[in-house]
Amino acid sequence: MAERRKTDTKAMTQPRYTGIPTFMRVPLAGEDWSGIDIGLIGVPYDGGVTNRAGARHGPREIRNQSSFMRTIHHVTRVNPYDLVSVADLGDVLFTKLLQHPGALDEIETVFAKIKGHGITPLTAGGDHTISLPILRALAKDRPVGMIHIDAHTDTWQMFQGSKFSHGSPFRNATEEGLLDPKRVIQIGIRGAQTTADGWDFSQKSGMRVVFMEEFAEIGVDAVIQEARRVVGDGPVYLSFDVDGLDPIYTPGTGTPEIGGITTLEAQKLLRGLRNLDYVGADVVEVAPPFDPTGNTALVAATLMYEILCLLAERIDSRR
Amino acid sequence: MAERRKTDTKAMTQPRYTGIPTFMRVPLAGEDWSGIDIGLIGVPYDGGVTNRAGARHGPREIRNQSSFMRTIHHVTRVNPYDLVSVADLGDVLFTKLLQHPGALDEIETVFAKIKGHGITPLTAGGDHTISLPILRALAKDRPVGMIHIDAHTDTWQMFQGSKFSHGSPFRNATEEGLLDPKRVIQIGIRGAQTTADGWDFSQKSGMRVVFMEEFAEIGVDAVIQEARRVVGDGPVYLSFDVDGLDPIYTPGTGTPEIGGITTLEAQKLLRGLRNLDYVGADVVEVAPPFDPTGNTALVAATLMYEILCLLAERIDSRR
Amino acid sequence: MAERRKTDTKAMTQPRYTGIPTFMRVPLAGEDWSGIDIGLIGVPYDGGVTNRAGARHGPREIRNQSSFMRTIHHVTRVNPYDLVSVADLGDVLFTKLLQHPGALDEIETVFAKIKGHGITPLTAGGDHTISLPILRALAKDRPVGMIHIDAHTDTWQMFQGSKFSHGSPFRNATEEGLLDPKRVIQIGIRGAQTTADGWDFSQKSGMRVVFMEEFAEIGVDAVIQEARRVVGDGPVYLSFDVDGLDPIYTPGTGTPEIGGITTLEAQKLLRGLRNLDYVGADVVEVAPPFDPTGNTALVAATLMYEILCLLAERIDSRR
Amino acid sequence: MAERRKTDTKAMTQPRYTGIPTFMRVPLAGEDWSGIDIGLIGVPYDGGVTNRAGARHGPREIRNQSSFMRTIHHVTRVNPYDLVSVADLGDVLFTKLLQHPGALDEIETVFAKIKGHGITPLTAGGDHTISLPILRALAKDRPVGMIHIDAHTDTWQMFQGSKFSHGSPFRNATEEGLLDPKRVIQIGIRGAQTTADGWDFSQKSGMRVVFMEEFAEIGVDAVIQEARRVVGDGPVYLSFDVDGLDPIYTPGTGTPEIGGITTLEAQKLLRGLRNLDYVGADVVEVAPPFDPTGNTALVAATLMYEILCLLAERIDSRR
Amino acid sequence: MAERRKTDTKAMTQPRYTGIPTFMRVPLAGEDWSGIDIGLIGVPYDGGVTNRAGARHGPREIRNQSSFMRTIHHVTRVNPYDLVSVADLGDVLFTKLLQHPGALDEIETVFAKIKGHGITPLTAGGDHTISLPILRALAKDRPVGMIHIDAHTDTWQMFQGSKFSHGSPFRNATEEGLLDPKRVIQIGIRGAQTTADGWDFSQKSGMRVVFMEEFAEIGVDAVIQEARRVVGDGPVYLSFDVDGLDPIYTPGTGTPEIGGITTLEAQKLLRGLRNLDYVGADVVEVAPPFDPTGNTALVAATLMYEILCLLAERIDSRR
Amino acid sequence: MAERRKTDTKAMTQPRYTGIPTFMRVPLAGEDWSGIDIGLIGVPYDGGVTNRAGARHGPREIRNQSSFMRTIHHVTRVNPYDLVSVADLGDVLFTKLLQHPGALDEIETVFAKIKGHGITPLTAGGDHTISLPILRALAKDRPVGMIHIDAHTDTWQMFQGSKFSHGSPFRNATEEGLLDPKRVIQIGIRGAQTTADGWDFSQKSGMRVVFMEEFAEIGVDAVIQEARRVVGDGPVYLSFDVDGLDPIYTPGTGTPEIGGITTLEAQKLLRGLRNLDYVGADVVEVAPPFDPTGNTALVAATLMYEILCLLAERIDSRR
Ligand SMILES: [Mn+2]
Ligand SMILES: [Mn+2]
Ligand SMILES: [Mn+2]
Ligand SMILES: [Mn+2]
Ligand SMILES: [Mn+2]
Ligand SMILES: [Mn+2]
Ligand SMILES: [Mn+2]
Ligand SMILES: [Mn+2]
Ligand SMILES: [Mn+2]
Ligand SMILES: [Mn+2]
Ligand SMILES: [Mn+2]
Ligand SMILES: [Mn+2]
Repeated sequence: MAERRKTDTKAMTQPRYTGIPTFMRVPLAGEDWSGIDIGLIGVPYDGGVTNRAGARHGPREIRNQSSFMRTIHHVTRVNPYDLVSVADLGDVLFTKLLQHPGALDEIETVFAKIKGHGITPLTAGGDHTISLPILRALAKDRPVGMIHIDAHTDTWQMFQGSKFSHGSPFRNATEEGLLDPKRVIQIGIRGAQTTADGWDFSQKSGMRVVFMEEFAEIGVDAVIQEARRVVGDGPVYLSFDVDGLDPIYTPGTGTPEIGGITTLEAQKLLRGLRNLDYVGADVVEVAPPFDPTGNTALVAATLMYEILCLLAERIDSRR
Repeated sequence: MAERRKTDTKAMTQPRYTGIPTFMRVPLAGEDWSGIDIGLIGVPYDGGVTNRAGARHGPREIRNQSSFMRTIHHVTRVNPYDLVSVADLGDVLFTKLLQHPGALDEIETVFAKIKGHGITPLTAGGDHTISLPILRALAKDRPVGMIHIDAHTDTWQMFQGSKFSHGSPFRNATEEGLLDPKRVIQIGIRGAQTTADGWDFSQKSGMRVVFMEEFAEIGVDAVIQEARRVVGDGPVYLSFDVDGLDPIYTPGTGTPEIGGITTLEAQKLLRGLRNLDYVGADVVEVAPPFDPTGNTALVAATLMYEILCLLAERIDSRR
Repeated sequence: MAERRKTDTKAMTQPRYTGIPTFMRVPLAGEDWSGIDIGLIGVPYDGGVTNRAGARHGPREIRNQSSFMRTIHHVTRVNPYDLVSVADLGDVLFTKLLQHPGALDEIETVFAKIKGHGITPLTAGGDHTISLPILRALAKDRPVGMIHIDAHTDTWQMFQGSKFSHGSPFRNATEEGLLDPKRVIQIGIRGAQTTADGWDFSQKSGMRVVFMEEFAEIGVDAVIQEARRVVGDGPVYLSFDVDGLDPIYTPGTGTPEIGGITTLEAQKLLRGLRNLDYVGADVVEVAPPFDPTGNTALVAATLMYEILCLLAERIDSRR
Repeated sequence: MAERRKTDTKAMTQPRYTGIPTFMRVPLAGEDWSGIDIGLIGVPYDGGVTNRAGARHGPREIRNQSSFMRTIHHVTRVNPYDLVSVADLGDVLFTKLLQHPGALDEIETVFAKIKGHGITPLTAGGDHTISLPILRALAKDRPVGMIHIDAHTDTWQMFQGSKFSHGSPFRNATEEGLLDPKRVIQIGIRGAQTTADGWDFSQKSGMRVVFMEEFAEIGVDAVIQEARRVVGDGPVYLSFDVDGLDPIYTPGTGTPEIGGITTLEAQKLLRGLRNLDYVGADVVEVAPPFDPTGNTALVAATLMYEILCLLAERIDSRR
Repeated sequence: MAERRKTDTKAMTQPRYTGIPTFMRVPLAGEDWSGIDIGLIGVPYDGGVTNRAGARHGPREIRNQSSFMRTIHHVTRVNPYDLVSVADLGDVLFTKLLQHPGALDEIETVFAKIKGHGITPLTAGGDHTISLPILRALAKDRPVGMIHIDAHTDTWQMFQGSKFSHGSPFRNATEEGLLDPKRVIQIGIRGAQTTADGWDFSQKSGMRVVFMEEFAEIGVDAVIQEARRVVGDGPVYLSFDVDGLDPIYTPGTGTPEIGGITTLEAQKLLRGLRNLDYVGADVVEVAPPFDPTGNTALVAATLMYEILCLLAERIDSRR
Repeated sequence: MAERRKTDTKAMTQPRYTGIPTFMRVPLAGEDWSGIDIGLIGVPYDGGVTNRAGARHGPREIRNQSSFMRTIHHVTRVNPYDLVSVADLGDVLFTKLLQHPGALDEIETVFAKIKGHGITPLTAGGDHTISLPILRALAKDRPVGMIHIDAHTDTWQMFQGSKFSHGSPFRNATEEGLLDPKRVIQIGIRGAQTTADGWDFSQKSGMRVVFMEEFAEIGVDAVIQEARRVVGDGPVYLSFDVDGLDPIYTPGTGTPEIGGITTLEAQKLLRGLRNLDYVGADVVEVAPPFDPTGNTALVAATLMYEILCLLAERIDSRR
C-alpha cells in the first residue's frame, strides 16, 4: 500500500469566503491519486430526474458552502484529517451527457478507478440516478448492504421510457445483484404515489422500510439500533438523499416532500452509525437553483463532514 | 342523486411541471357540476387582511404546486379518487371586488350553489375573511362545529371601520348562529395582541382554545382526542390558516407568528381526524408574494391533499 | 375548411391573478382541434441544454404571466381575437423524456398533427432544441426561411455525444433541407466561443448574421429592412430565443450573454415584420428557476402576444 | 407667513444603514407643521389596485432606500435643503381602510391640512388611486395641469363595481373639474388593453398622450418641450407612476408593462422641467413584495430627490 | 429618581406596514433620556465578523419587522408597557467606524451614558463583538453573570491580528473581570472548529457549556433549571446570538451552524427565566443581506419582545 | 525572461457548471509563478466600504460565474490564450484583516511580488480601497495614468476616522504620487453628495471627469477618443467599479446609483481602448449578497474577459 499523504488543512483556517472552493478546502488531487484514503468527488449529473433539474449544479455549490466546515468534531472530538488522507478528486467529466443512460458508464468508470486506488469515495451528486453506477463499481464483487435516507424508496420502475431514473437506482441495483436487500434499510419514506409498486418492491425484496411516521414514533435511537441490526458487520454503502430531510432544511431539491427529518435528527442518526464497514457514501439531490439562501448546500456539506468522520474513523481503525 | 363521475387521474402520472395546473391536476368542472362529490375551488380574495395582502394569489400558486400531489396516501393507502369524484370548480369570479364587504355576498352565492349540487367544497383562499360567507352558505340551516388551526382566534372585533376582516370571521359566524361555539376547537393560538378581546370572546362563548404552549405540552395525540371530543358526531367544518404553522414552513402569509406547529404535527393531527361529519374545509392565508421558495404553497397543497382524503373517506363511508 | 371558432375573451377581463392560467387566458382546445387558426402550445422539454436546465418549466410560467396580456394592441390597434380563432392546445405530452433525442420525435408528431389541422403554431419552449422537430413537421414539404433572434447562431456541431442540443438545431435543419439558409437572418449574435465553427457555418451556408455590434450600429429600422429583404415573400418561421435580449430583461435563461437587445427594440423589430408569410413561431429558453421576479416569463408572454398579432393579421389578410 | 425652519441634514452624513429611516433622513415633523416648505409624506394605501397589491408597503421601503440620498445635486449643484425647509410628515393614518373608497376621504383631509399650512406635498404612494383625493385637496379652488408619467392613462371607467381604482383617478379628476385636460400631458403610455376607452377619454378630453413609441422616436428633449408647452405657466401637479419605467428598473410594481422608459431618460426629463408652478407631486405604485433587490424603491427615492430639487428651486425663486 | 414616562402605544394599534419603524413602534427618545426604564437601542456595527458581514443592517431591519409586535403577552398576559417606560434610543452613532477596535470605545461611551440614566438597555446588534464594550459599561463596577445562547462559545483567541472579533468577546470580558465565569452558562454550542481552544477556555474558566446535543437530550425545562442555578441571584446579562437557533429560523446570520435550537424552545427558555436580576440584554448577529424572507429579523424582534417582558417584570417588581 | 507557459484551456470546453471554479477556468498557478504573463487574482477585502459590505465575497462569485467565459472574442476574434500565458494566482491571503488599514500592506506585498515576476495583474475585488495598495506596488517607480469607470470619483477625504476608504483611493494615490492626475479620466460619475469636495479635487488636480450626463450626450465613441487623448502613450492602469454601470446590470454592489452606463456601452468602450500601455487592471465592488440572480458577477466576469483581451494583445504586441 502506498504511503498515506498528510492532508494539508491550512486553508481551513482562512476566512471562509476566501480561496478556491474545493470540498472542505482540502487539496485538489490532480492526476496522482496515490496515498489517498478518502476521495471527495462531484458527479454533476441530473439526467435522470423526473421533475425539477438542477442537481447538476450540486457539486459546485456544496463545494462553495463546504468552506464553512472545519476540522474537529464538537461531539466526538474526531479530527478526520488527523486520521486519514483526504483529497478532492474533482468532478466526473463527461463526454456523453446527452446520451442517457450511457453517461452512467462514464460515472462507473471513474468509480472503478477510485476503487482501484483503494480510495473510499464520498460523493456529492447529482441526482440519485448516480448511485447505480457507483454501486456497479463498488459492489462489483459482492452485494453490499445500504443505509438509505430518503423520502422515496427509489425502487420504482420505468419512467418516461427508461429504467434509469432517480426513482429506480435501488431496484436496478437489487436486480443486478449489487445490493443485498436483506441488508438494506430505507429511512424517512413518505409522500403519495400513483402506484404502490416501489414501496411493494422494497418490502417484498426484504428491505427494511422506515416510513416517516414510524421514524417519528420510535425516535432516532431506535432507528439507529434498527439500522445497525439490518446492515450488520458486512460491507455497507450510505446514501443520503437530501429530500429525506424536511424541505425547510433542503428546499433546493427536485422532489420535496413535506413532513421530513430534521437536521438535528439526521446528525444524531449519523453519529449513531460509527464503525460500520463503509465502502463509500453519497449525498445527492442538492439542486441549487431552488435554494435561495444556500442552506440546502450548507446542510449537504455538513452531512458530508459528518460522514467523512464516520469513514475516517473506520479506515483508521482498520489500519 | 346524480351518478358519480369517475375522476380522470391520467394527468397525475405526467411529469409535474407539465400541463395546465388545475388543483391536483383533476379535471376542470366547466359548467356542468352534476355528479361531483368534492369540489376544489379557489377564492382569490384578500380584501379583509389587516396587514400584508397577497392571498389573492393563493389559489393560483397552490394549484401550481399541487401538481406535486399524487393519488395513494402513503400511510392510509387511501386513494381518494377511487372513492369519490373530484373536480376543480375554478375560482369564484367577482364583479364587486372593490366593494368590500359586498364581495363576500358573491362568495356566498357560489357556495350556496355548491351546496345545492350536493358537493362538499374544499377551498383554497384567499384570506380568512372568506370563511364567513362560506359558512353562511354551508351552515345556513343549522350551526356547525369547527376544527380551526390558526395562530389567531379570529374572533376579534372591528378593524379599520369594518366588522369583516380576517381577524373576525368566527366572531361574526358565532353571532350569526352559523357556528356552535361549544363545538369549536381552535388550535395553535399564539402571539401578542393589543387587547385580550378576541381570546376572551372565544373562551367566554365556549370554544376550546388550545394555545401553542398547551399544544407543545400535551402533544398531538392528546389534541386529536380533544378535537374529536369537542366536535363530536355533528356536522363540522375544518378551517386551516397556514399561519398556524411555524413561519419556517409557511413564510408566505400575511401575519406570521414564530413558534408554531410543524408540518409533521399538522399531518398527524389531520390523520387523527378521520370520519368526522365534514361539511367542507378550507386552507387559507397563502400569500405567494412573500414565499420565495414556493414551500408555503407546497405545504398548502399537501394539506389540501390530506384533507381531501378525509372528505373522500367520509363521503364514501356514507354511501 | 372548417368554420372558424370565435375566441372567447371573457376571461381576459377578469383580474389577472384569477382563474386557470391558459396562454393569454384563451380557452383550452381539448380534443377537438377543428376551426382553430392559431394554436398556442407548450413544449416543456429541456433535454438538449448545454448548461443550466429549467426551460422545462417555461410553458407553465409563461402561461402564468401571460394573464397580464389583453386584447387590443396599443400601437396597431389590432385585436387578434377579432381576426382569428386562437386556442391553447396544452402541452406536448411525452412518453420518452429520458430517451433523448427520441423525445424529439414525439414533438414532431404533435406539430405534424397541428399542421394537419391547418393550425399555425405559436410555441412556448422549452430549450431551442425543440425548433428542429417543429421544423421537421412544418417544413417537411419545402425549406422555409427564418427570422432568428438569439445571442447564439445555434449552428454548432456535436455537444457531449449528440448532434441534437440547443446549440445545433439550425445546423441540423439546414443539413436536413428544412431551412433555406439564404433566407435566414440571425439577429443579436454575441459572446465568446471556443471555436468559430458555428459562426462560420452560418456565414458559409449563406445566412445573414447580424452580430449585436452591427445591430447597435445600424439600428432597428435597418435591421427590419434587412430581415424583410432576406426572407422575402416565401414561407418563414420566426424563432425567438430570449437570450437574444440582454439578461437584465431575461435573467431566467440557460446561457445568458451580457450586452444584448432591449425589449423596446425587440418590440419595434417585431412590429416591423408584419405581413410576412409565417408558417409558425416560437419563443424559447425561458428557465423560470433563474427568474426570481418573473420578468423573463412576462417578457416572453408579451413577445408571444406581439407575435400573435403578426400571425393573426397574416392569416386574416389571406382569407 | 411663519418663519421657515432650517432643515437639519446632519443625519445625511452618517453611514446610510444607520438611524431611523425618515424620507431622505430629514427630521420628522411631529405635531407642529409650521414653517415647513415641503412635506414628504407617505400614503400607505393600495385599496384601489386592479391586480397585485403591495403598494401599501411603498412608503416604508422608499423611506428605507431614501437613506442613499444626499444633499447636492451633481448636475445642477442645487442643495434643496439650503433653499427650503423640508420635513417628513409621517404617513396618512387611516381609520377606515376597509371602507373603500371612504378611506380616500381620510387622505383628502390630510392634504387639505397640508395645503392649509402652505406646505407643498411630495408624496410616496400607495397606488395611483391616491392621486384623486390629493387633487381634491390641492385643486379644490381651480383646475390644475399635470405632467403624468405612466404606462397607463389611468382614465378608465369602472373596475369591479367601483369608479375609484388606480385605473381611473384622472378620469374622475377631470370629471370633477380638478384637472384641466388641455393642460395635461401623459408620457410613456403603452400595453394592450381590453377596450380603447381610457385612451379615447384622454385624447377626446384634450390631454396630450405621448405613447412610448413616440417617446422613443422623438427623444427626451422633444418630450420636455412638449410638456412645457402643454402645462404652460399655470399651476401644475406632477404624478410619477413607476410603471412608466421599464420593469427592469421597477419590477416591484402592480401592473408592469415591458418596453418602458429608462431611469436616465426619466432623470433627464425631470431636469428639463425646472421652474414650473408646482402645487405638489407624487411617486406611486412601488410594491416592495415584488422587488427582491430593492431597486424599485431606490429608483423611487431618487426620483423623489430629483422632484424635491424641482419643488425647492420653485419655492425659493418665488420668495 | 425621575418620574417614569408612560409609554405611548397608540402606534401599535395601526396597521403594521404604516408609520416610522422605531423598535416595537415605541416613541423615539430624542435628546431627553430622563424617566426611561428600558432603552431599546441599535448598534449597527459588524467590524468584528470573521466571515459574512451584514449585521450592520440588523438594527434597521429588526426595527422594521418589530412593527409586527404588540402589547399583551399571550402566555403571561404581561403588558410591558403597563409596567415600565420604554423608548427607542436610536442607534449608536460612530465617528471611527474604520478604526476597529477603536469604534468599540464609542459603543462603551453610549452604554455608560445609558447606565448613568438608570436605563436598562435592550440592544439589537450588530455582530457579537459589541457585547464586550456593552459589558465594559454595564459591568464596570463588578463582574456579572451571563445567560448566553449561541452556536459558539465566543471565547476564542486572536482572529486576523485582533483580539476583538465576534469570536472573542466573552474571553476578553472574562479576562477583563467583567464576567464571573462561574455564573455564566452557554447554551446551544455546536459546530466543528479548527482548535478546541475556545471550548477549553469556557470549561476551564468555569463556565457551564450546554452543547446542543445535551440541550436536545435533557430538554428545555432542565436547561432552564441549570441556567437559574448557574446565574443565581446576582446581576446577570442576557446575550442572544441568533445563530444559536437553527438556520432555518435565522438564515440571515454570518456564521450559521445547522442542527440548532427551535424558536419554540427559545421562547420557552426565555419564559423560564423570569425575575432574574437583569442588567441588560442583547440580540445580535442578524445579517439582513442573507435573509430573503425577513424571518430572521422577525424572530429577533420577537425575541426582543420576550426579553422586554422579562426586563419589565423585573424592573416593576423592584419598585 | 522565463519561457512563457501555454495556458491549458481544456476545462473551458466542459459544461460550465462542472469542475473547480478558477477564474475563466484557467489553471491555478500554485507556488511557481514563473512564465506567467497575466495573473488573475482575487482580493477578498471590503474593510473600506462606507455603506453595504459584501465585496469580500466578490472573487469567489466572479470565479464561479466566469465559467461562462470562453476563448475567442466574437468581435475581434482574439483568443487571448493563444497570445499569452494566463493563470489564476488565487486570492491574496490576509493575516491582518481586522487591522484596517494595515491589511492594505498585505495587498501591496502580493502585488509587488506579482510585478517582480513580470506578471500583469487583472484583479477581482474587493472594494475600491484595494486599488491604492495595488497602485503602490505597480506605480512605485513612476506615476501612471488611469482610465477609471465609476459612479464616484473616489477622491473624497476622511470617512469615519480614516483616509483609507473606498471613497478615497485615488485622492491618496494622487497625493502619494502614484497617479498623474493629468493622465486620469473618470467616466460615469453621478449621484448626489454631501459636499463637492471629491468632484472638486478631481477637477482641480487635472483629472478629466466625464459625468454621466456628458457620457450620454457625447456618446461612447467620443468618450473613447477622450480617454485615449488623456492617457496617451504612457503606462496606464484600468479600474472598473461596477457601480459605474446602472444598478439594473449590477445590483450587487455597495453604493448603487441609478442612471448609469449600459453593459453594451461598457463593452464598446473597452473595445475602443486596445493597445494602450496597461500596467494592470481591476474590476471591483461586486457584492454578491445583494445580487440574487448572479448577473452582477456575470457582468464582472465578462468585463474581466474583455480586459484580458486588451492586456493580452498589448503584451503580445510588445514581444
Ligand atoms: Mn432518492
Ligand atoms: Mn428522494
Ligand atoms: Mn392567522
Ligand atoms: Mn386566520
Ligand atoms: Mn438559441
Ligand atoms: Mn441562445
Ligand atoms: Mn398609474
Ligand atoms: Mn401605471
Ligand atoms: Mn456569538
Ligand atoms: Mn455564534
Ligand atoms: Mn469606486
Ligand atoms: Mn463607485
